[in-house]
Amino acid sequence: MGYTDLDQLAVNTIRVLAVDATSKANSGHPGAPMGMAPVAHVLFNKFMNFNPKNPDWANRDRFVLSNGHGCMLQYALLHLFGYAISLDDLKNFRQLDSITPGHPEAHDTPGIEVTTGPLGQGFANAVGLAMAQAHTGGVFNKPGFELFNNFTYMFFGDGCAMEGIASEAASMAGHLKLGNLIAIYDDNHISIDGDTKCAFTEDVMKRFEAYGWHTEWVKDGDNDLAGIEAAIRKCQQVTDKPSVIKLTTTIGFGSKLAGTGGVHGNPLKADDAQSVKKLFGFNPEESFAVPQQVYDMYHKHAAEGAAKEQEWNQLFQKYQSEHKTEGADLARRLSGKLPEGWEKKLPVYKPTDAAVASRKLSEACLEAIHDVIPELVSGSADLTGSNNTRWKNAVDFQPPDLGIGEWAGRYVRYGVREHAMAAVMNGLAAYGTIIPAGGTFLNFVSYAAGALRLSALSRVRAIHIATHDSIGLGEDGPTHQPVETLAHFRALPNCMVWRPADGNETSAAYYSAITSKHTPTVMALTRQNLPQLELSTLESAIKGGYVAVDTPNAAITIVSTGSEVSIAIDAATYLQEKHGVAARIVSIPCFEVFDAQTKEYRLQVLPDGIPVLSVEALSTMGWERYSHEQFGLNRFGASGPYKEVYAKFEFTPEGISKRALATIEFYKGHTVRSPINRAFQQIL
Amino acid sequence: MGYTDLDQLAVNTIRVLAVDATSKANSGHPGAPMGMAPVAHVLFNKFMNFNPKNPDWANRDRFVLSNGHGCMLQYALLHLFGYAISLDDLKNFRQLDSITPGHPEAHDTPGIEVTTGPLGQGFANAVGLAMAQAHTGGVFNKPGFELFNNFTYMFFGDGCAMEGIASEAASMAGHLKLGNLIAIYDDNHISIDGDTKCAFTEDVMKRFEAYGWHTEWVKDGDNDLAGIEAAIRKCQQVTDKPSVIKLTTTIGFGSKLAGTGGVHGNPLKADDAQSVKKLFGFNPEESFAVPQQVYDMYHKHAAEGAAKEQEWNQLFQKYQSEHKTEGADLARRLSGKLPEGWEKKLPVYKPTDAAVASRKLSEACLEAIHDVIPELVSGSADLTGSNNTRWKNAVDFQPPDLGIGEWAGRYVRYGVREHAMAAVMNGLAAYGTIIPAGGTFLNFVSYAAGALRLSALSRVRAIHIATHDSIGLGEDGPTHQPVETLAHFRALPNCMVWRPADGNETSAAYYSAITSKHTPTVMALTRQNLPQLELSTLESAIKGGYVAVDTPNAAITIVSTGSEVSIAIDAATYLQEKHGVAARIVSIPCFEVFDAQTKEYRLQVLPDGIPVLSVEALSTMGWERYSHEQFGLNRFGASGPYKEVYAKFEFTPEGISKRALATIEFYKGHTVRSPINRAFQQIL
Repeated sequence: MGYTDLDQLAVNTIRVLAVDATSKANSGHPGAPMGMAPVAHVLFNKFMNFNPKNPDWANRDRFVLSNGHGCMLQYALLHLFGYAISLDDLKNFRQLDSITPGHPEAHDTPGIEVTTGPLGQGFANAVGLAMAQAHTGGVFNKPGFELFNNFTYMFFGDGCAMEGIASEAASMAGHLKLGNLIAIYDDNHISIDGDTKCAFTEDVMKRFEAYGWHTEWVKDGDNDLAGIEAAIRKCQQVTDKPSVIKLTTTIGFGSKLAGTGGVHGNPLKADDAQSVKKLFGFNPEESFAVPQQVYDMYHKHAAEGAAKEQEWNQLFQKYQSEHKTEGADLARRLSGKLPEGWEKKLPVYKPTDAAVASRKLSEACLEAIHDVIPELVSGSADLTGSNNTRWKNAVDFQPPDLGIGEWAGRYVRYGVREHAMAAVMNGLAAYGTIIPAGGTFLNFVSYAAGALRLSALSRVRAIHIATHDSIGLGEDGPTHQPVETLAHFRALPNCMVWRPADGNETSAAYYSAITSKHTPTVMALTRQNLPQLELSTLESAIKGGYVAVDTPNAAITIVSTGSEVSIAIDAATYLQEKHGVAARIVSIPCFEVFDAQTKEYRLQVLPDGIPVLSVEALSTMGWERYSHEQFGLNRFGASGPYKEVYAKFEFTPEGISKRALATIEFYKGHTVRSPINRAFQQIL
Repeated sequence: MGYTDLDQLAVNTIRVLAVDATSKANSGHPGAPMGMAPVAHVLFNKFMNFNPKNPDWANRDRFVLSNGHGCMLQYALLHLFGYAISLDDLKNFRQLDSITPGHPEAHDTPGIEVTTGPLGQGFANAVGLAMAQAHTGGVFNKPGFELFNNFTYMFFGDGCAMEGIASEAASMAGHLKLGNLIAIYDDNHISIDGDTKCAFTEDVMKRFEAYGWHTEWVKDGDNDLAGIEAAIRKCQQVTDKPSVIKLTTTIGFGSKLAGTGGVHGNPLKADDAQSVKKLFGFNPEESFAVPQQVYDMYHKHAAEGAAKEQEWNQLFQKYQSEHKTEGADLARRLSGKLPEGWEKKLPVYKPTDAAVASRKLSEACLEAIHDVIPELVSGSADLTGSNNTRWKNAVDFQPPDLGIGEWAGRYVRYGVREHAMAAVMNGLAAYGTIIPAGGTFLNFVSYAAGALRLSALSRVRAIHIATHDSIGLGEDGPTHQPVETLAHFRALPNCMVWRPADGNETSAAYYSAITSKHTPTVMALTRQNLPQLELSTLESAIKGGYVAVDTPNAAITIVSTGSEVSIAIDAATYLQEKHGVAARIVSIPCFEVFDAQTKEYRLQVLPDGIPVLSVEALSTMGWERYSHEQFGLNRFGASGPYKEVYAKFEFTPEGISKRALATIEFYKGHTVRSPINRAFQQIL
């Protein structure tokens, strides 16, 4: 306690920097930084352990700004504490190619743990980070070696509080009793539409109590630094529940528009900015002024953090000599390397092996690799038995006192919370010691689109095990049968969509997903059985596309994925037998990986001279890149036994053959160039 | 009260029908119907007003099964009460092209109000239906004419309770004090992963209290029919809050697996099914047996419902003579017809009119038509000022005692709840007297993907006003800049995506959205100003695609949408001036509408003989259908002033010209067929 004028000066420095940066950019959100500067000061300077010179220290306290539009708060703090963010970077706020973009982006800016801005995401990321701390501590901590005990702090506003994803994550965090998670709710009563009383009048703290959270309330968040400190300290002492502090603040504190929506998303007017500076004892004519004593105070705290990291490093060294196996495992995980030779564990199949559903093939991969990749943490949004996401001897990740699992458990029961699951996975991955995988039906990955987008944008390795991937799920019907879903995720940049056709392709999907350190993967898997293909091997499938049936003098190439490849192969037989037409069959289980192959290889797979027909029981959108004509499902499916549904929509050897013949006819007499040939390159 | 053996027989008939139908289909969910049969019996037979012979009666009580997988419960009830669902239809449960699909689908099955199954959706639909009742009553009820006072009843289970969309909707319903909404929570402690204690241990009722709901608890939902009745009656008496009844039940009541996950999603084993029948006094050898006295009791209630409809019809007739204007308006709305000549109010523009952002052009449409289309109810997910969704003199839809609006208000403050907004809009539309429109940023329509999918599947007219539609939003950066979003919704069947380039195209988008009675619309609108195009007219734009610049002897067609059309036009000038190359420009603001034009027309727009280059600052996916080469953004955007971002990614006259020249070069010496020519037709 014992706050002085210097503390107040630091608080006001943050406020004024937010005013200056948004004014210079003529864009951005000054209100939240001005309102939350006091709590940010207390939290960062009195509680948080971090070393700005090494933002990757494994046991650092994590900070997440779920109301990411207030990022000038975070950028200002990072600058003041000595992270590699200069005053010039602050002056470049929201400018092209700066490290201070309009919302915090984890991959470019030191000290930013996760990419936030889309409301509610950061809340769920923080739950993931806290779960990761509990899990990593559960795995590695030993008597005398409390290696992982960091706190996760998270700020959120009314917008986040209204989002369903935050509700899901809060319910999960309460169930999981995440004692090291402390959230601070910026109760400023203002959202973009004005006073929250127009849409948001629930009792937020009561709701969090219902979830099983500890709650505190600081009534004067604008001024009561001691009260803020006391509340955080109390929350730290509650170790069997996550905590939330309701912090009643004034948005845009100090501005003429303080307490109104006018200060939320627009820079202050010039005279208002000047008056704020006067009020806080700054020179109204000066911009981006930082009193040296504020730097000094913050750098002192940063130095203390660096010393703590040193202590930790020594502890970890001792750990490595006393607990050799765990120490080596942890050192490897922190280095970002995979265990050597892990890929040799992936199952491989012969053409004579039994037909198996790819969701079961996926289970076989998890069964085969979970021992050798101990950082793999699986789970499902309440579809464990359908998604086949749980290896046999898996232990659930649960608070030990529930008696149904332990912190070191590697299977997460996400509940029916798809959106939170995907965002929690982003948090788990961001912690640095975990590779998360999570299952739901492919159709309900769409519920998680907001979070998966951020996996892709923030370059996170998260594996979505998406079963029941087409009309092949049968009776559940069109409410559950994806049509547009793969087009959606294939259009998402930096997202790998795999739709394997058999066992070797499924193993290739896992190889790709696990080794793609900066890319999320969606694996579309079948409910129904699939035969093992003749020419499918791990090596060929790993290329993302390959020739599945090579036929001399073919008149057409049929390209397909997943459950339709074997039907296409039957169609080739049918075409030969009934029409004397030779067809080549190509399988492209992953567009993104296939696109990364050499043009020479891609042209071998999809050669010039004969037309290409694509076959996939989903929207045809996107297939034009690999084919001249497309056979797919550009309508909703139907409820019924799956073979009947396939027949209804003509995904049969006959149905494919009919379209293959039409395609051959259509291109007769025309010079046919492979769709691989393009006039120019895309900007990537 | 006074429940007899006949009541129990009815309850058990429902249970046995659910067992028989799932057994015959060898697929489906018997557990929830068996557990919820008692409450369904009490609700339908003691409380609900409906006429099975006219499922469209405007003031009928609404019923929504949010846990839609339990739909055999609903199908059994509809059959027993005399809706046009026969015993054969029950025998065809989950069979191809039956009216009893795996999850309830509103458009095919009489008595199904909304399409449910994807968890949480029905919950939010019910909130929408209750809002619609409150609004429609607010608009039309007069002293002595309580035309709209129906209740909305909704069942939901643990799965729905975990979903964020239901949390959002529950918070909204509490704020709105929807007294005529009564939800029944099937507290059976079982979800697919087993006991809810593995993932869901919050205090659900306390959470609903925090939202402002009235709560009741019936502890023996399996047997206590009188207790259920009393609880519902109490809820009816609470008129200033929505109500929820926690009904503790045994999933699969009567089965050997009762109370376990084993009975959730699989038919009962043959011996179990027989034992259930014995237990309930049915012949174990007989299937689909309905005691006549059950039919008689239910048909009696149905006849009472029909009589109530008669009374209502008489009241409405009287209303029409006493309140001519309102009566005529209501009669028209119920007929499904739009007001005659409404489209003449749509703004039209001359090329010389000022450049305006399309979000402002959309506002101008709302301003122009809201008077003539009184059923239009707008709103926004807390982005009113950015989405421009509110006409000037709009009144908010609010409970009157808040003093900030009224039930008849036509502007909904959805809060930051995109997913609930879209599902509430489905409920508003399903009521039959409202055309809902709602705004958010295009990027965050993705949060609502689950609900929008059901708008499309269930053929609902809902208008999504999706602003800030590209990198053109500038500084907010890639977290807010859509890339994959239009590909996603263009791939969604029965969903119209409009991306207008100017004023007349925006008016055309409204014309299309309002007149498409069975199709949702996503309007992608700019933050930045757009000039009025030379050849754009309402008539041409309504075709979904047209020639925006016609040039004789063109070497290339450049096709584009929205903000890129005017840049493409500048590129045509640049090509002519710098390279002596003539280019035609085509605008396709809506793929779906363009696809519906004659082939002849489409070939006029995209003729044979010259190559087509597409230009859109979004994923190129899908553009292959209308072009030979594609220029787009297959990566994430960037934070910065929007003109700089456009320049970075070369969406400039120079950047487009470069690619146009490469395209011309690539096709030199080749016969070029229009992409409109295809080898075969898609199944639609």
